[in-house]
Amino acid sequence: MKLQLAIDMADTDQALRMAAQIHDVVDIIEIGTPMIVREGMVPVRAMKKEYPDAIVLADVKIVDGGAVEAGYAFEAGADIVTVLAVAADETIADVLKTARQFARRTMADMITVRDAARRAVELDKLGLDIICVHTAVDVQWQGRSPYADLSKIKPLVTYAKTAVAGGAGMGTIPLIKSIGADLVVVGSALTGAADLRRAAFEMKKLMS
Amino acid sequence: MKLQLAIDMADTDQALRMAAQIHDVVDIIEIGTPMIVREGMVPVRAMKKEYPDAIVLADVKIVDGGAVEAGYAFEAGADIVTVLAVAADETIADVLKTARQFARRTMADMITVRDAARRAVELDKLGLDIICVHTAVDVQWQGRSPYADLSKIKPLVTYAKTAVAGGAGMGTIPLIKSIGADLVVVGSALTGAADLRRAAFEMKKLMS
Repeated sequence: MKLQLAIDMADTDQALRMAAQIHDVVDIIEIGTPMIVREGMVPVRAMKKEYPDAIVLADVKIVDGGAVEAGYAFEAGADIVTVLAVAADETIADVLKTARQFARRTMADMITVRDAARRAVELDKLGLDIICVHTAVDVQWQGRSPYADLSKIKPLVTYAKTAVAGGAGMGTIPLIKSIGADLVVVGSALTGAADLRRAAFEMKKLMS
Repeated sequence: MKLQLAIDMADTDQALRMAAQIHDVVDIIEIGTPMIVREGMVPVRAMKKEYPDAIVLADVKIVDGGAVEAGYAFEAGADIVTVLAVAADETIADVLKTARQFARRTMADMITVRDAARRAVELDKLGLDIICVHTAVDVQWQGRSPYADLSKIKPLVTYAKTAVAGGAGMGTIPLIKSIGADLVVVGSALTGAADLRRAAFEMKKLMS
């Protein structure tokens, strides 16, 4: 199981300081959507410049203009770009085509998808590299979690890797591991840790 | 009927040059999602600095982290921020709450919504200021258009203003006007015009 650190509430300098602590520990460094809303592709470009060997995911959450927006992310150096699972298949096809041109990867974000099983099968056939079940941060306080969806899609997906995002932390890693996700996306449980490097190591240990 | 110019495929300097031509003609200047993906809130801030009286819409298409992302847009000076209609009601509520704190406005983007009538009624009750039916640029070549959805939602929406986006141009203004949209979002039909100012004036004339 691989670990993706999501950096959401930071500026480019803060994100680079976090990366300095964990670029050799985590598997993927995510430039989160709030960072992109504030700074566009600046943090993606800076991260790849400073850590060219790091795998950087740009959480653009594309829902239209698939070729253009994926192109911007890949030109900035992103290794993986996200597209919303609720996007039209045509948009997703354009993201996939652009990813192929750049020899990069795609992740579908399943946020707000109602029938996760059906959509995951469709996305798997379309050729997404990673399918990420995801509970919005805005609804996590209601006790909703993405683990039921992860269990549902895991046996149905054959080509894509599976990932899970939304409130994951030390306490939920054993459950996620038991379901068999390929990748777990962790945000505040790591970025809020007193010692980020130590926390990331601990989490990797729990995952192995 | 009001006119929103969507600037998608431009950098901040190009967008400012376009605004110089039409800031006194169009009703709303939209910083489109592709611009935000590339440059974040830089163009929003620059547009409000140069044209403080212009109404600037930041097409963030929020789908999670409603308070944070809307906050970034309003702090940058945006008068209106967009949230995806497919977002969780909790996310939309957070966007609305943040808009109230800043005394700004919200637009729901209906892109990829299947049951437009039902969702429009829900969004109207939630208190969105504008509900925008929208056909993704990636599917417009199939002949799909948002006008059927506009006809459907127009009689159902009581509080919100209605808007339409996706392929609108000189040829479709009469139809949009006859359905009774409050706002039409026009992108390439204007930004691709040889004389942007003249084209914007012509379109306003058609709309009146």
